[in-house]
Amino acid sequence: MINRLAIIGVGLIGGSLSLALKKAGKVAEVVGFARSEETRQQALSLGLIDRAAISVEDAITGADVVLLAVPMGAMAKTLADIAPHLTDNMIITDAGSTKAQVVEAAIMSLGDKISQFVPGHPIAGTEKSGPSAAFPELYQGHRVILTPIEQTDLEALKVVQVMWTDAGAEVSEMTINHHDHVLAATSHLPHLLAFNLVGLLAQSEDVDDVLRFAAGGFRDFSRIASSDPVMWRDICLSNNVAILQLLKQYQQQMAEIEQAIEQQDGDYLMDLFQRAKQARDTRFK
Amino acid sequence: MINRLAIIGVGLIGGSLSLALKKAGKVAEVVGFARSEETRQQALSLGLIDRAAISVEDAITGADVVLLAVPMGAMAKTLADIAPHLTDNMIITDAGSTKAQVVEAAIMSLGDKISQFVPGHPIAGTEKSGPSAAFPELYQGHRVILTPIEQTDLEALKVVQVMWTDAGAEVSEMTINHHDHVLAATSHLPHLLAFNLVGLLAQSEDVDDVLRFAAGGFRDFSRIASSDPVMWRDICLSNNVAILQLLKQYQQQMAEIEQAIEQQDGDYLMDLFQRAKQARDTRFK
Repeated sequence: MINRLAIIGVGLIGGSLSLALKKAGKVAEVVGFARSEETRQQALSLGLIDRAAISVEDAITGADVVLLAVPMGAMAKTLADIAPHLTDNMIITDAGSTKAQVVEAAIMSLGDKISQFVPGHPIAGTEKSGPSAAFPELYQGHRVILTPIEQTDLEALKVVQVMWTDAGAEVSEMTINHHDHVLAATSHLPHLLAFNLVGLLAQSEDVDDVLRFAAGGFRDFSRIASSDPVMWRDICLSNNVAILQLLKQYQQQMAEIEQAIEQQDGDYLMDLFQRAKQARDTRFK
Repeated sequence: MINRLAIIGVGLIGGSLSLALKKAGKVAEVVGFARSEETRQQALSLGLIDRAAISVEDAITGADVVLLAVPMGAMAKTLADIAPHLTDNMIITDAGSTKAQVVEAAIMSLGDKISQFVPGHPIAGTEKSGPSAAFPELYQGHRVILTPIEQTDLEALKVVQVMWTDAGAEVSEMTINHHDHVLAATSHLPHLLAFNLVGLLAQSEDVDDVLRFAAGGFRDFSRIASSDPVMWRDICLSNNVAILQLLKQYQQQMAEIEQAIEQQDGDYLMDLFQRAKQARDTRFK
């Protein structure tokens, strides 16, 4: 049971956590802060928070758990903003999509209190964002990955685990590097590939024909190119190491595909396509 | 009204055309040929064809329309096989996914009778194949592209147009090059990108974690990597020119993305992602 939860950045992610915990009876009071007055009032009137704070300091004062649910690009500044106001028993966690950069910023800003910080990533979301998109079932059946570091206090880790479990999520732990690599593979690289293809087609002369004859496979494939550009710019910049590593492998294999097509090497293509189909059919279903 | 339709390769594509035309009362008799006796008997017992022919010659003798619905890799041989048995008023059409190579093979094999050949591509299909996958509604609301050439007889073109319209499809015409370019953009390149990613991930050490944490976006994106490897090998080999041209542009833009991530150039990424999102939201929905 959390007595007071403070949410910095009350949108889909923070708002849904609040609703889920309230519904489960696992939080007594939720205080929220957002940069814009409009967002704060919206979160209040939608019942996502019990009180709208007027500053970060106001939001976290007296909280036992603080969730940072701001965009990746605002994470470092938010950590710096809260640092002077943290008390000894306050637990801080975040919902950032990549972990190496957030943890680096936390180490820089939080100093001795780094033990109270539990890095986290709820793998849930919809194409919508903002307070009005929040709903209590967002985390049901979804995974939350926590990436504790050496300094992380085990009691703090336990509190955050229980919080997400209470919200309906399945909580796992992994190292920062493993998290950033797995997410680069299953989420960041696919988004880049789709953004790249749709961006390329959008500037072609016969874009209208392209659309008219695009079939269902293309629609499914390109859906993620409709995602929020700011969020994805921030993810690419912050998970640059893991993304670049994987992208180089991807590009190398694509160069082999290109060569196979040029040389009419059907065996290479057949082998790759068969391996891909088998993996997709047996493992991703 | 077609008196006798001959289908060479009775699977999903040919079988569904037969069922659709029968249902619409637009064909009197359908004769089918497939290489395997089992497929022929299956097509017969499922009612896809009225008679199973014992050879290509047997199948097309007396037919007014011949549909070639064999895999792309078998198209050239099938054209050579039917060539000696064609009569003057017989109309030949095909259902190949790429057009330049089929037309080249037709010109070589059919000689003077090239005017009776109408190159076509029904843009329809499911993940399944074979006679048992056929159903009469496959073409309802789907597009069929015909790519007539200079020599194509206008009466023959008209018959094939009417045939596909009777089957429920919306028929368009375009040049061979345009067809092959549009399909490379909307179908062939997306398949390559998905095959490449899933193939890469399948051989990674932490493949199991990758799967466990793959979210909905990845499932949609990678669905087409489950497509038939033989069909896609053949498509890559036969539409090599258009695919390679587009792939080079794609790779060039991907190298720019890579550079932008390396140099932390958020403006480049933001601009590309915004253009892609706008195109996807306004044009592909």
